[in-house]
Amino acid sequence: MKSLGETRIAIVGLGLMGGSLAAALRGRCREVTGIDRDGRSLEVAMARGFVDRAVEDLEQGICGADITVLATPVRTIIRQIGEVGPWMQEGAVLMDLGSTKGKILEAMETLPHHVQPLGGHPMCGKDLAGIGAAEPGLFRERTFILSPLARTSEGALDLGKSLAVAVGATPLVIDGARQDYLVATLSHLPYLLACVLVGTADATTSADPAAWQIVAGGFRDTSRVAASDVPMMLDILMTNRHEIVKSARVCGAQLAHLTRLMEEGDERRLADLLARICETRKEMF
Amino acid sequence: MKSLGETRIAIVGLGLMGGSLAAALRGRCREVTGIDRDGRSLEVAMARGFVDRAVEDLEQGICGADITVLATPVRTIIRQIGEVGPWMQEGAVLMDLGSTKGKILEAMETLPHHVQPLGGHPMCGKDLAGIGAAEPGLFRERTFILSPLARTSEGALDLGKSLAVAVGATPLVIDGARQDYLVATLSHLPYLLACVLVGTADATTSADPAAWQIVAGGFRDTSRVAASDVPMMLDILMTNRHEIVKSARVCGAQLAHLTRLMEEGDERRLADLLARICETRKEMF
Repeated sequence: MKSLGETRIAIVGLGLMGGSLAAALRGRCREVTGIDRDGRSLEVAMARGFVDRAVEDLEQGICGADITVLATPVRTIIRQIGEVGPWMQEGAVLMDLGSTKGKILEAMETLPHHVQPLGGHPMCGKDLAGIGAAEPGLFRERTFILSPLARTSEGALDLGKSLAVAVGATPLVIDGARQDYLVATLSHLPYLLACVLVGTADATTSADPAAWQIVAGGFRDTSRVAASDVPMMLDILMTNRHEIVKSARVCGAQLAHLTRLMEEGDERRLADLLARICETRKEMF
Repeated sequence: MKSLGETRIAIVGLGLMGGSLAAALRGRCREVTGIDRDGRSLEVAMARGFVDRAVEDLEQGICGADITVLATPVRTIIRQIGEVGPWMQEGAVLMDLGSTKGKILEAMETLPHHVQPLGGHPMCGKDLAGIGAAEPGLFRERTFILSPLARTSEGALDLGKSLAVAVGATPLVIDGARQDYLVATLSHLPYLLACVLVGTADATTSADPAAWQIVAGGFRDTSRVAASDVPMMLDILMTNRHEIVKSARVCGAQLAHLTRLMEEGDERRLADLLARICETRKEMF
């Protein structure tokens, strides 16, 4: 297996994640090819020096690549996994950057045997989408989850780790089911809560013009991810439904419990619960 | 009524809010006196140049003040309103910085007639508490809610507005009931949601050591205010229970609805809902 510096890398989808990955990898491997159906994104990627080559056609773009990274929304990734296999060269690695892994790894199982599949999920993001928001530092000091399949070779996994390290991230190898369980609560639930916070304000206080002057830092931070790209989030929610619904149920029960303690004015139990949560949050960060 | 520059101001409680207010007002009025039962906070306030005078005794500290600002937790404010009236000079203004207004304004109604009461609530904060986190810029470009009583004179309200402007904030005059209704959703509900997010992670994923490596920006921002000072938040929740419980109920129903749409795989309605929320969030900030 080649070292990362010797590889040609093709990145499919030059949005926030793909564009940032291209920018972070350029100069750290033999060649970075950006592939996108949107000519404007290709132009921006070239103008900003994120890629060596910009190609519209998927087959043409990944031809000769040692690593192909699918950086499109999850269900597009799944469709593209079904397309690219026959076009990839012997021993080439197919990675993705999708936020859910179950259905992506299922699709990767069906790849031709000459392809090395490797699930990937860098734990970073922004509420801004598109190449305009891309930056080479996006992955720095973040965790980059790698989920190999049983058929994935040691060499392909090592190359994936090198890629993660090259963009400044820390690789973390966990299987797909465990990753989907963890991110349901740690990444997808925050999105749902941000959404219901905005939805509640929309249903209640937004009728009062003073609301817009009052809304402050706490609301801003808690609701930030509600502005995330909807098609991307919809794919994530639909492909990790089972785990997210379970997590949302636990959360809903906790909200109901907290509401009940307040309604009953049970100050002692409320104080104990909030103190424990405050401690947990401080331990986390 | 004196202009702000001619007034002596006494600030009771040198925590994040009181300390920051002192720092922002110093040099913009005749004298700033800081009052705190904690000798360490007084020392820090003097050392950082936040106050002209530092006093432990409440009666001694507010003696001769034209404006007294209660910057303690809400239920301490309510108790102190019952104490300070007789010690205040003729025509002096008594303000507070509490996050809830209903019970504070009720207590202010009972003040002796020679005192001018004015509810205040600057829409800013941090998850760090105490004078160590205080800074003169805390109120800059923030909204400073002012809630006068029927008995509050025009002159007292104008002085409150001058104080808000002097610290870089924009005054917004709304009555106590309206402020409590608005902040229940815009400030207190974000705290509850941040808490249940941390609580859900604690009850589920925290048993997996990988969780601590995975937890990223979305979770961090959405849960930030869960680290807020618990005694302060407990006072807020207990004195605005009615409005917060109503808001939490609306929010709980929205979370249940979103969970149900995911469980049923109702993608079209899910997409419509998330798109609307995304738009609303973008309009907000």
